[in-house]
Amino acid sequence: MIYLDHAASTPIADSVLEEMLPYFKENFGNPSSIHRYGRIATKAIDSARKRIAELINSNPNEILFTSGGTESNNTALHGIMSQNKGKQFITSSIEHDAILEPCKKLESLGFDVIYLSVDSAGMIDLAKLESAVSEKTALVSVMLANNEVGTIQPIKEIAQICKKHNVLLHTDAVQAVGKIPVNVKDLGVDLMSISSHKINGPKGIGALYVRRGVNLDPFILGGGQENGMRSGTESVANIVGFGKACQIARENLQNNHNNLQDLRDHLIQRVSSELSHVSVNGHPQMRLPNNAHFTFLGVNGEDLIIKLDEHEIAASTGSACSVKTQKASHVLMAMGFAHEKITGSLRLTVGISNTKSEIDQTVDVLKQVVAELRAVSPFKAKYGF
Amino acid sequence: MIYLDHAASTPIADSVLEEMLPYFKENFGNPSSIHRYGRIATKAIDSARKRIAELINSNPNEILFTSGGTESNNTALHGIMSQNKGKQFITSSIEHDAILEPCKKLESLGFDVIYLSVDSAGMIDLAKLESAVSEKTALVSVMLANNEVGTIQPIKEIAQICKKHNVLLHTDAVQAVGKIPVNVKDLGVDLMSISSHKINGPKGIGALYVRRGVNLDPFILGGGQENGMRSGTESVANIVGFGKACQIARENLQNNHNNLQDLRDHLIQRVSSELSHVSVNGHPQMRLPNNAHFTFLGVNGEDLIIKLDEHEIAASTGSACSVKTQKASHVLMAMGFAHEKITGSLRLTVGISNTKSEIDQTVDVLKQVVAELRAVSPFKAKYGF
Repeated sequence: MIYLDHAASTPIADSVLEEMLPYFKENFGNPSSIHRYGRIATKAIDSARKRIAELINSNPNEILFTSGGTESNNTALHGIMSQNKGKQFITSSIEHDAILEPCKKLESLGFDVIYLSVDSAGMIDLAKLESAVSEKTALVSVMLANNEVGTIQPIKEIAQICKKHNVLLHTDAVQAVGKIPVNVKDLGVDLMSISSHKINGPKGIGALYVRRGVNLDPFILGGGQENGMRSGTESVANIVGFGKACQIARENLQNNHNNLQDLRDHLIQRVSSELSHVSVNGHPQMRLPNNAHFTFLGVNGEDLIIKLDEHEIAASTGSACSVKTQKASHVLMAMGFAHEKITGSLRLTVGISNTKSEIDQTVDVLKQVVAELRAVSPFKAKYGF
Repeated sequence: MIYLDHAASTPIADSVLEEMLPYFKENFGNPSSIHRYGRIATKAIDSARKRIAELINSNPNEILFTSGGTESNNTALHGIMSQNKGKQFITSSIEHDAILEPCKKLESLGFDVIYLSVDSAGMIDLAKLESAVSEKTALVSVMLANNEVGTIQPIKEIAQICKKHNVLLHTDAVQAVGKIPVNVKDLGVDLMSISSHKINGPKGIGALYVRRGVNLDPFILGGGQENGMRSGTESVANIVGFGKACQIARENLQNNHNNLQDLRDHLIQRVSSELSHVSVNGHPQMRLPNNAHFTFLGVNGEDLIIKLDEHEIAASTGSACSVKTQKASHVLMAMGFAHEKITGSLRLTVGISNTKSEIDQTVDVLKQVVAELRAVSPFKAKYGF
């Protein structure tokens, strides 16, 4: 099977699993216990926290462990807005549902939520943000890189606007971390969500960067773990694995970036030149190195994925979280795509274990299955396939 | 090291880890993906859900995966109370902080919260509950078994009172599941929290039983996993491990119960007869089979644990989540214990891998270290040690 859905999830690296294993059995203590088992677990968490901090250039005590990117996003929005009743929240219209669904909740609680529009490349307009921010605004949240089309937002410039107006900035960096350099100090963000399973770490663990000085209300309450900021017995093995995955990501960032980009560029180049009626979506330059997002006119993306799956290729139409509901991508709609263009979309996201021959094989299969689907397409006459 | 802190956490069973391993690497797919990797992950989750349901006699679709017992408790309280503004919540004064801290939050949001008192054995009074419940009450939450002293509450009778008044009942069964038979239909509860790492499964995974027909607001919002009730990419390997742990717990329940009780009774018998000025706390009969909770007068529990740790014995003063904060146990206070009696408390919780010889060794060490601590105790003269 050729796996080209690394934006959905990634396999655990061997060295990650190796570091996790002792924390399932020998070192199984509850970090809250004061005996030796507890101290060993606490030490492991401290060490992982350092590794995560190193990847994003934060201080270790600015890292809050959560159960994943979704909880990180929920924690950030709840944690800031719950102390800002009656104030405003600004986000973009292409955020992940883990931001947009909490937004609906905020609206139902009486908060004013502004959704910034994006252009056809999925980029927000800084002037629009500038004019939307006011003394009513408590928090801005704009994703660092989009999970569907890979477009990278100008977070540094967004942060400058937020700072000028004394407004906090959160960014969902789940797709960006480990793919491009992400430095919280350089970006100037106040809060940032990251996830382990997108960077060859285990599922069920993530973190929220909370800049020192940011006053956050805790979301999950209880025994007071994570300095009272996130209760619940720490998922020690997962935390250890997440730490190791961050260390590997940091050490290989430049190398991986180049390799992923080469593979992705080769994929885009071949698809663009060898198939007709195809467009490459998202920003041409400001995009994740591993993301390729296409539209094949006259083809249904779901059918395409099923056909690719039959040919041993794992792909996606967009966000893994929404494919099962079969709803049209809110990201592509926000980018102004017509229904027909949304329907024919395919996301291929390469990973560190993919090879050039796998990409070539994928393009060969793509040519065949797109032709098959177009042969029976209701748009056959319209486009003259 | 002799580990006698199984109420804090337990090591993963070999067969649990074995079943988890393929889901870290080969079968690493995101369950939301529609390709083969996704389908394999979904199938694994379905199978684990069935095993968890079997352990507690629920339907699989009544099981909601969470990141652990704390999130389960938060989800239950938030999920019911958020749709019952202005209504009342009744709980007990000996709940885990994962209930009591959300209670404080509910109070700050204007909810009326009633804390039922307990007797000196840690048992609530059904008559007091009966007189507290009214048409104002939306939800009652009483733990099935206490994490410190092990007292088991009469949940079946509590459920009958709740039903009579048309009030929902949640129970925190984190310590009870896998130790005593827990049957949601027989108990008559509407919501129940369970945790994996207390029954030789991995940390960072738990579940909330939600009886069919109970209308719950989701707590963590996003991509719509778990039927829209709990968003976030599923922690597949952890879920698989949790499922296996439940299967093992179910198959060995009676056997484990008897073994744990024999070890625990032997421990209590020897400690009671061979040490002076000692009391056994909690209910003499209605208690978890693996829990022994003592008070050694004139001794500081923290000092005792450190001494035991030096002698290679892992123990606790009470809840693992509160020992680091060194605050006096709210459970023992609610049971009416004087400060002196709280200070000298020690919780020993046996597990399936403990042996009788380990218990004997522990008692021998206990006799020695209690004597050492009492020799320098400020209460030496008072009690005439």
